[in-house]
Amino acid sequence: MDDKILRKYMSRMCDLNHAAELMQWDLKTKAPKNALDTHAATIATLSTESFKMSVSDEMKGFISAFENDDKLDNILKASLKDLKRTYERSKNIPEKLYKEYITHTTKSEMVWEDAKRNNDFESFRPYLEKTIAFNKEMAAYIDSSKSIYDVLLDNFETGIPSDQINSLFEELKQGIAPLIESISHKERMDDSKFYGHFEKRKQKEFAEYMLNVIGYDLKSGRLDESEHPFTIGRAPYDVRITTRYDEKDIRSSLFCVLHEGGHGIYEQNISPALIKTPLAVGTCMSIHESQSRLYENILCKNINFWEPIYDKVGELFPQFKDISLDTFYRGINIVEPSLIRVDADELTYNMHIILRFELEKALFTGDLQVKDLREAWNEKMKEYLGIEPPTDAQGVLQDCHWAEGSFGYFPSYALGNIYGAQFVTKMEAEVGTLEYLLKEQRLDIIKDWLKNNIHRFGKMKTSTQLIQDVCKTDIDVKPIIDYYKSKYSKLYSM
Amino acid sequence: MDDKILRKYMSRMCDLNHAAELMQWDLKTKAPKNALDTHAATIATLSTESFKMSVSDEMKGFISAFENDDKLDNILKASLKDLKRTYERSKNIPEKLYKEYITHTTKSEMVWEDAKRNNDFESFRPYLEKTIAFNKEMAAYIDSSKSIYDVLLDNFETGIPSDQINSLFEELKQGIAPLIESISHKERMDDSKFYGHFEKRKQKEFAEYMLNVIGYDLKSGRLDESEHPFTIGRAPYDVRITTRYDEKDIRSSLFCVLHEGGHGIYEQNISPALIKTPLAVGTCMSIHESQSRLYENILCKNINFWEPIYDKVGELFPQFKDISLDTFYRGINIVEPSLIRVDADELTYNMHIILRFELEKALFTGDLQVKDLREAWNEKMKEYLGIEPPTDAQGVLQDCHWAEGSFGYFPSYALGNIYGAQFVTKMEAEVGTLEYLLKEQRLDIIKDWLKNNIHRFGKMKTSTQLIQDVCKTDIDVKPIIDYYKSKYSKLYSM
Repeated sequence: MDDKILRKYMSRMCDLNHAAELMQWDLKTKAPKNALDTHAATIATLSTESFKMSVSDEMKGFISAFENDDKLDNILKASLKDLKRTYERSKNIPEKLYKEYITHTTKSEMVWEDAKRNNDFESFRPYLEKTIAFNKEMAAYIDSSKSIYDVLLDNFETGIPSDQINSLFEELKQGIAPLIESISHKERMDDSKFYGHFEKRKQKEFAEYMLNVIGYDLKSGRLDESEHPFTIGRAPYDVRITTRYDEKDIRSSLFCVLHEGGHGIYEQNISPALIKTPLAVGTCMSIHESQSRLYENILCKNINFWEPIYDKVGELFPQFKDISLDTFYRGINIVEPSLIRVDADELTYNMHIILRFELEKALFTGDLQVKDLREAWNEKMKEYLGIEPPTDAQGVLQDCHWAEGSFGYFPSYALGNIYGAQFVTKMEAEVGTLEYLLKEQRLDIIKDWLKNNIHRFGKMKTSTQLIQDVCKTDIDVKPIIDYYKSKYSKLYSM
Repeated sequence: MDDKILRKYMSRMCDLNHAAELMQWDLKTKAPKNALDTHAATIATLSTESFKMSVSDEMKGFISAFENDDKLDNILKASLKDLKRTYERSKNIPEKLYKEYITHTTKSEMVWEDAKRNNDFESFRPYLEKTIAFNKEMAAYIDSSKSIYDVLLDNFETGIPSDQINSLFEELKQGIAPLIESISHKERMDDSKFYGHFEKRKQKEFAEYMLNVIGYDLKSGRLDESEHPFTIGRAPYDVRITTRYDEKDIRSSLFCVLHEGGHGIYEQNISPALIKTPLAVGTCMSIHESQSRLYENILCKNINFWEPIYDKVGELFPQFKDISLDTFYRGINIVEPSLIRVDADELTYNMHIILRFELEKALFTGDLQVKDLREAWNEKMKEYLGIEPPTDAQGVLQDCHWAEGSFGYFPSYALGNIYGAQFVTKMEAEVGTLEYLLKEQRLDIIKDWLKNNIHRFGKMKTSTQLIQDVCKTDIDVKPIIDYYKSKYSKLYSM
């Protein structure tokens, strides 16, 4: 069989996915209110079409024809491997079930947006229950030999089972709990100057300036507003990010933008040779989050990052002219228990993830019912962070993941923290210390290193392969713990 | 055969078209610069897929199975008739040619945008030449018994051949030429107060206010910026319009918005019963333009329209507080030869169309070559309007139609003027004079009349059927000539 046929087949799948993704983006950022049903129907048609192609007899034929074909180039070989994995996972899922699921989750997201806006968990509850039922049914079709939650985890992080995540998170918890405890006895750093009125328009200008600083390319992307920040893309030439603005405090949107900017940089630097294959995408969500959280935190919450550009902050928002860079730096690094995951500091952030990991696992073992989810959320918030959400919008309704059916996604964020520190340790050894690179505004060197070692490969390598190839070690919690210890002992004089 | 299969088939075609249209909208309003190639590829894939469905053996089977099936409801009957027409016209076009054409025109539009921006006809010329060659080739496949231009006309106005258009336009020319001539000897009305600086942001606010006044529903649509104003939609719940802003003069964008708003109102009021059939769209471009030009001109350039809302103009743009409603009214109705079609007054506008009609006809008879098009354009401008474009951006490059391959579209605008006046004459007889309806701000009555008589039918009726059913006459140039005579004799005291 000529591999041109396979290429053409993949190209058509990519185009269908491209259109479906763009319609998702549109629905969340631009589409008029009344467009929901027609958009949902078209998204379902396109996704189902692509799904059907992934499990078709033709696909089966490609797999058996090319599987042992040594003449295929490396990209086609890796593509075929990925297509085979998808085929094996999806071949037993009934098409009708899949289409119903896509239609359901597209609507569920919109219902969630309203529910969050109106702080009304009950209106969203039946949708969530149905999403969970759908996921249970599908997981059984995918791999009935594994626990449902482990099957779902594989959608986002291939090959790391929940037991291993459990022990990594245990180690993480033990490393950060004493730090959080010590900091809780310290005086709160003064950030009174951060509160005020900051026009959306100005924040957007600032965001685009910052994206430019870190190396996100606005000619191959754009920045919009949405209920929940996200990145969506057709790598490498059209990778879009979103944020939402809090007009009372610039920090919230600023670090969302830098986070999504990190995702965006990853996708924008995938090799163009992977276009029109299933590999032109970040390899899995934990590696993706390692990049986004690396930009958001390790790079952009470092004092050296701000030193060369601090004047710009005062230029756009004059109230910052009154405070020193040091006060600014302290203000963006306050450690304290808070309600909203995406706004949390680097340390307590991990507790937000562990909470979600435990809850979603329980939803699928049957230990927790959706009707008790709100209460379980609030109890865990009290246990881990000592605070209780006054509203569901600030609690169980805050994130979009469950609304869109992404169970098993949350662990990626904390795994991303862990991997990110491993990568940075290696990068510093190879191209210079962060202090030097940031002070000299050599974000280009950082981006190039990440591109050469991680980004360009897209989905050619798995997360474990990448970590092995780049760091020459296994997954290791120590670097992130060391980073936290060093950063916060200085900041809080401990 | 169960008609459910046909419905499902039509529904899939609609979804593919929906996605392709949304990507077109995205490309012209939001997409990052580097997204062009991937967007063009996906649009071509989706459009070709829908094209293939329209000429497939399955489609042939539906036509023969249902053609004489009396049990079909009226909507399915009309759908089948439309599908058959498309089938007959398209069945001989090679799929490969079609796909190449779509890819080519998607890029051609983007090249035209740059060419217009840079006032560089030469960079666009090879694209235009190729578009014309494509159209010639395709027209021969569609119907080799007709002239190429007549085949192309049928894409936009079904059943009115170029000879008939010729004689309608002759009559139109004879009616308006003396008026233009007389007005040219009158003193120019004073519009000095219209010039100034009008912020985009404010103009957008004004535009949305005006859209609300005329009854365009922003919950089922949105307003964006683009190089050339257009309306695109999935009727009736997602019909989007665009404009561009001139910060020196509000009139340009204002009347673009009201024009596109008219298109939008048409599509938003198509019966929801037609969703997921090929009939959920305006019946043809001349009827579409009759609605847009009716709103833009007959309604919104009438003094009575402005009387109840004139305070709003001064509120948003204080310089208008200094001029009376009468001066404002005169300022939006100045008749004088001008360069840009979309900004032209109602009378000379028709000359812009006649010029384009003659030029595009000549491009397809072979009487005119693309290399001589610019010169021919400028000569005709001199002949018909007495002025010559100083730049190509203000001349031959000003419109998007040829760039996107829409030859045969332009006559629709002048036909729309003719039909619009016929419709208004009938409407006034049935629900009250325009003077009354506008003074009392009863745009709702106007919209309902248009909806009941025209909009709701979508593509269920052809233009000639609609005119017959509504006006009980054939196409008639007299009402628009009478309207012009009455309006301008008052305005210019003739």
